[in-house]
Amino acid sequence: MSGTGTQETENGAPIAAVPGGDSVVLAEAEPLRLESGATLGPVTVAYTTQGRLNADKSNAILICHALTGDQFVSGDHPVTGRPGWWETMVGPGRPLDTERYFLICPNILGGCMGSTGPSEINPATGKPWGLDFPVITIGDMVNLQALLIDHLGIDTLFAVIGGSMGGMQVLDWAVRFPDRVFSAMPIATALRTSAQNIAHHEVGRQAVMADPDWCGGRYQEEGKRPHRGLAVARMGAHITYLSESALTRKFGRSLQARERVTYGFEADFQVESYLRHQGITFVDRFDANSYLYITRAMDYFDLVEEHNGVLADVFAGTNVRFGVISFTSDWMFPTAENREIVNALNAVGANVSFVEVETDQGHDSFLMDIADYHNVVRGFLDGAAELRGLDRP
Amino acid sequence: MSGTGTQETENGAPIAAVPGGDSVVLAEAEPLRLESGATLGPVTVAYTTQGRLNADKSNAILICHALTGDQFVSGDHPVTGRPGWWETMVGPGRPLDTERYFLICPNILGGCMGSTGPSEINPATGKPWGLDFPVITIGDMVNLQALLIDHLGIDTLFAVIGGSMGGMQVLDWAVRFPDRVFSAMPIATALRTSAQNIAHHEVGRQAVMADPDWCGGRYQEEGKRPHRGLAVARMGAHITYLSESALTRKFGRSLQARERVTYGFEADFQVESYLRHQGITFVDRFDANSYLYITRAMDYFDLVEEHNGVLADVFAGTNVRFGVISFTSDWMFPTAENREIVNALNAVGANVSFVEVETDQGHDSFLMDIADYHNVVRGFLDGAAELRGLDRP
Repeated sequence: MSGTGTQETENGAPIAAVPGGDSVVLAEAEPLRLESGATLGPVTVAYTTQGRLNADKSNAILICHALTGDQFVSGDHPVTGRPGWWETMVGPGRPLDTERYFLICPNILGGCMGSTGPSEINPATGKPWGLDFPVITIGDMVNLQALLIDHLGIDTLFAVIGGSMGGMQVLDWAVRFPDRVFSAMPIATALRTSAQNIAHHEVGRQAVMADPDWCGGRYQEEGKRPHRGLAVARMGAHITYLSESALTRKFGRSLQARERVTYGFEADFQVESYLRHQGITFVDRFDANSYLYITRAMDYFDLVEEHNGVLADVFAGTNVRFGVISFTSDWMFPTAENREIVNALNAVGANVSFVEVETDQGHDSFLMDIADYHNVVRGFLDGAAELRGLDRP
Repeated sequence: MSGTGTQETENGAPIAAVPGGDSVVLAEAEPLRLESGATLGPVTVAYTTQGRLNADKSNAILICHALTGDQFVSGDHPVTGRPGWWETMVGPGRPLDTERYFLICPNILGGCMGSTGPSEINPATGKPWGLDFPVITIGDMVNLQALLIDHLGIDTLFAVIGGSMGGMQVLDWAVRFPDRVFSAMPIATALRTSAQNIAHHEVGRQAVMADPDWCGGRYQEEGKRPHRGLAVARMGAHITYLSESALTRKFGRSLQARERVTYGFEADFQVESYLRHQGITFVDRFDANSYLYITRAMDYFDLVEEHNGVLADVFAGTNVRFGVISFTSDWMFPTAENREIVNALNAVGANVSFVEVETDQGHDSFLMDIADYHNVVRGFLDGAAELRGLDRP
């Protein structure tokens, strides 16, 4: 995961970077204090950067990835060989314009693409952490990201952006470090995780834990992998990322490479074949324990509770400019939950724009190349860039 | 499962019955020809009856149960000890009034409460059927129910009623035996299973099959039970039976018997505890292979395809009176899918009333004691009973 992509100059001058992987060890002198009370350190953060940091370091955008995302936002993924998860959003002339902005995307704490997580070695034992890894929160992820931003010599981020769990990190950044965030784009997300989403996460976790090859979390030591349980978890979760109308439009009741049903349990229907494929390919790139920890971090996310249940207190006194986006067919983070963010911001007279994008593609819309959506991101960042005095490319 | 509940008289006079279990062996002389082309016979049907069949046998209502239901619609369930699944709908003075109607509820073909299914003994081998059991369809279930109705000496059913997969059987009855059905109440159902529901079923099946104790379907012979996989399937399915608003209202983010989160993987949240309980109690009463076969039967259900894709042909020439009910918060069988039934009926000028009941209880509303809903059922049956010339109780 270490690479030669990022060159830093000693005098703090512009950092030139190319797509690729980098990593840094942080929290060495003082361990990261987690919200649970536990401490963790040193901590490795794997990350990518793209674009060029300008002289006054005012054009940095932090991209926060979702549950199963990682730092490889665009370009060919070094593990899967497939395009990055935000391929159409990032690049020259795209909404996250690499000609104008300096983009940073770290793999989250607890992840499995190089950052410290349960599949990494516990220095105290010399063995993989497994379930000895401390339970982490969205706030812990953000605190670690702040150390990375310190390390990169950046004081204030021009923007923090992300969808789904990435959007939770965006909101947490704006609350935790309001003076270090100029603008924030939380997309398809919520101030707190709903009962239904906790329920879906719990089913996924139980699917993993039901697999005997999970071995109580010690599958690495046992030389096993709970791939069947993790695939089931992924299949179930994947349905929540789509919408009924998209599933009907894409697959309907079409059969998979056959003229008629087989009266058996093979994947007669295209939608079955598609889901099985989603499960199978996921387990090749994702760690089962990471899946447990990251879904748990989402469950615990509740910015309202953190502010004594008072919606108006969440963003009190904020100067951050917010661009909130939801999607009409997203039933995992429906518009009502995104609107709660807007309500909390309006309650303190914050600077916020809100757009609900019309689409049938469900929650996964935040990953999709939807013109209206991309135009909203581009427009919001353009406006903020003008206020920030950033040069046009 | 055999019992002393039902007394039949030789001269075809009224049958008196009490709640309890009964069973009969059918398709002895000639096996049941399944839609797959396979044959099956003899076939046991376990069933219950309540109320009294009138002299001209014109007051019989067939109750069709859903995926995980069974013949014990009301009264204490002999296996679980809990009330029947339609306890509040059935009884003296209730919408399915046992003072007025003769109620019949068979355990479906492929079920696991006494009717022939994959957990029963295959007479050809002397071992449990397992995956050697032929794949069945909703139509096969209905054909077997028709043999039961023959056996009970009933020519025309006053009504066929059921929700969810029970509603599919209702629709199939009306299409397959239009002259044997006076009225039909399909509730919270569809003419064909959607891609999203096939997807949910497939995740459930994969959860069962991923459990090593499933043993390729031969778990009975191996002395094992895939209870972990089946519990995961049930947990996932259970979410689809509810609604986001009901989950939020019932559980929200409330913690389970603790003041604060534990930063672990125990059931911190009430909704987790609730789901785990649903999974655990389900496996005590349900057979894993039955779960596979019955969800598969639902997947294959498509009355439109059976009529060459022409909606208007599904109910062509029908004289059956239809009462269709949907629920506003049902996202498994949303109103749009129930409305498709109504559209198909309207296309042939059939006698149909349609009510969408306002409730936040999701798909499971069809099992709930919702006054508006019960009034619709009562009113529809009252009207049909008057047309049928049935005495008031």
